[in-house]
Amino acid sequence: MQNNKKGKVKYMNVAILGFGVVGSGVAEVISKNADAILENSGIELKLRRILDIRDFENNEFSALMTKNFDDICNDDEIDIVVETMGGINPAFDFVSSCLKKGKHVVTSNKELVAKKGFELLTLARENNVNFLFEASVGGGIPIIRPISRCLAGNRISEIAGILNGTTNFILDKMIVDKMSFEDALKLAQENGFAERDPSADVDGHDACRKICILASLAFGHHVYPDGVYTEGISKITLKDVEDAGKLGYVIKLIARTKMLESGKIMIMVSPALVKKESILAGVNGVFNACLVRGDATGDILMYGKGAGKLATASAVVGDVIDCAANNEKRKFFGWDAPKENFIEEHENTETALFLRFDKTGIEEELRGVLPVAELTESDGETLVITGLGIEKELMKAIGTVSVKPDSVIRVTDY
Amino acid sequence: MQNNKKGKVKYMNVAILGFGVVGSGVAEVISKNADAILENSGIELKLRRILDIRDFENNEFSALMTKNFDDICNDDEIDIVVETMGGINPAFDFVSSCLKKGKHVVTSNKELVAKKGFELLTLARENNVNFLFEASVGGGIPIIRPISRCLAGNRISEIAGILNGTTNFILDKMIVDKMSFEDALKLAQENGFAERDPSADVDGHDACRKICILASLAFGHHVYPDGVYTEGISKITLKDVEDAGKLGYVIKLIARTKMLESGKIMIMVSPALVKKESILAGVNGVFNACLVRGDATGDILMYGKGAGKLATASAVVGDVIDCAANNEKRKFFGWDAPKENFIEEHENTETALFLRFDKTGIEEELRGVLPVAELTESDGETLVITGLGIEKELMKAIGTVSVKPDSVIRVTDY
Repeated sequence: MQNNKKGKVKYMNVAILGFGVVGSGVAEVISKNADAILENSGIELKLRRILDIRDFENNEFSALMTKNFDDICNDDEIDIVVETMGGINPAFDFVSSCLKKGKHVVTSNKELVAKKGFELLTLARENNVNFLFEASVGGGIPIIRPISRCLAGNRISEIAGILNGTTNFILDKMIVDKMSFEDALKLAQENGFAERDPSADVDGHDACRKICILASLAFGHHVYPDGVYTEGISKITLKDVEDAGKLGYVIKLIARTKMLESGKIMIMVSPALVKKESILAGVNGVFNACLVRGDATGDILMYGKGAGKLATASAVVGDVIDCAANNEKRKFFGWDAPKENFIEEHENTETALFLRFDKTGIEEELRGVLPVAELTESDGETLVITGLGIEKELMKAIGTVSVKPDSVIRVTDY
Repeated sequence: MQNNKKGKVKYMNVAILGFGVVGSGVAEVISKNADAILENSGIELKLRRILDIRDFENNEFSALMTKNFDDICNDDEIDIVVETMGGINPAFDFVSSCLKKGKHVVTSNKELVAKKGFELLTLARENNVNFLFEASVGGGIPIIRPISRCLAGNRISEIAGILNGTTNFILDKMIVDKMSFEDALKLAQENGFAERDPSADVDGHDACRKICILASLAFGHHVYPDGVYTEGISKITLKDVEDAGKLGYVIKLIARTKMLESGKIMIMVSPALVKKESILAGVNGVFNACLVRGDATGDILMYGKGAGKLATASAVVGDVIDCAANNEKRKFFGWDAPKENFIEEHENTETALFLRFDKTGIEEELRGVLPVAELTESDGETLVITGLGIEKELMKAIGTVSVKPDSVIRVTDY
């Protein structure tokens, strides 16, 4: 081993599964920043193989390309495997095989971690290797590691995030530029921020996978996306956004989870009102943010662009370096098996609600059946922020009012 | 070694130097959260000794107290020493001695790290132990570790922070409640957010120490507070705050550093205008935030309460756990010796300025000598945001104007 003034140099061979946006970014970061990585971490990373079923000819990495996974799995010189294929198949099989072969695995694949995290963490533990996924939640924003560190000497009670840049961009355009949802979505698609089929973003599924990973990490048991109440933003109207604004709120797609006194957790993804003074209200455009509430630390927030080729790639490379630094031993990191009845039905949890009625003169009736924290009549409408109550009880009370509300949206206290 | 389902348990003995606010918080966190720490990190921490010159009688830790540093330094069973005394003497001697004895050291003492960091990091390297100081910059906010990680595969170009809660509270009261500086300071003192002698906060020295630590970490050479231009907030008037507001800005005490094309760095602490849309503008009250601009990650921000007994203690305990996890080997972490001519004089760096003249009808004159980005006449005043220019050249041009400006405040682009 060579010495430099900061310590001994370690040599590590890396393979990449999937040469798409993130995978090619990882290759670029490793090859361009090799010197800086060596200087800053004492680790010399060597890119040894890249798996992709497609052909890449005139490419600086051509010599490393293979279409055969065995070239990676059976190569004992490969220490660390980066999985950036996305999806479950064949990523899950490939990652499992690499862990069983004693290779560290780093992934940016949120679906894989949200759906198979516990199995893969268990395999990693059994084989004394690391399975790391910092890039899976916030791209280049440090989230997983700070949360994992926050658990040292601090009890996390709650996590709330704006974890999807596409929906935040759309809501922001509605708030700031008074665009309709449809026009804002179209603009997001034109700018490449939204897919042609935008449902994974707009319907909240992307944010759901991310909050599942964070809930698993913070509360210690695997939480599967299937069990999580998820509501997207497609029903939010410009009127909702404007009326929320009149009361001093903005509407954001909030993914959140909270440890309840019962020992169960609340977890859901839904549009929600956030006070304009909240730091979360200042998270604009395609930016993401994750707020962590701890008993010792109070509220902590990590903010940045939650996606992007180089941002995500740099987070992956950070994990690769962490694997290399902890090559001899596994990091103490992960969570336990899923737990029966761990998630409280969202209707049974406490919330406040924003209500919009297309009618005035109903204040007395509303106050008769609902806890009312704030009520304004404006332009022929009645806008209400309810007090806190169990969601299904509030909904039942609302059902008894002579007028049906045009909108019902949850209100947060962040 | 005992096994639990996540891995092997490690036993570590800890001593604390200084039983003040943070030191007693560390003792509390370690003793109250021992089970959670074991569960989350596989490390069993045992508090073995506490040094303080004062007497603490009816205290759960009485049996551990000593007034003799040798009881800690010469106790080979002590693996990790926490320094929470503050100041340079005797903290520097004590920490040096512990490192030389092969003990890891964790500190929350920003003055010690800002003034003696390079010497202590060198000693730690020579003795193959860790010297960690996450709590020294942002209390419970993860800052040092994310920045250190950001350096993996990302080139940091700039760091800007609101790193002092006292001054942020005062400016916030001026902005939101239209209080004068003097009244806001008094309120901060009444609330225990400011010392009776508030100069370390109000004059920017506290923020200066913190940005020195961050500059050293990000740019690789020790930067001493003595060499850093530091301007406090005591000259900021309510009028400045209101006029900045008219132009869409808030005034914050910003500590910042930037790598220049010349290879030198810009580093300074001063009040500065921040756009209201900026995420930094949303950092209110006693909250702190640190924005890190990287070539791969873009802008990342870490936010939270920058002080407080348990928040700071939990960051210290996080470092203690990190030392324990890396007991066999030193973490690759730190910076090099200071470098001659590393800091560019602030007058030679580029900035934009906010100017307030107590006169109207001078637009033509101003445009004749200055780059003008924005100019408004309002209530008998002329308010200007200049274009970018070298600070001393802008100041020279301002000197040629027939009217002296009532205020000159830097403008940021965050």
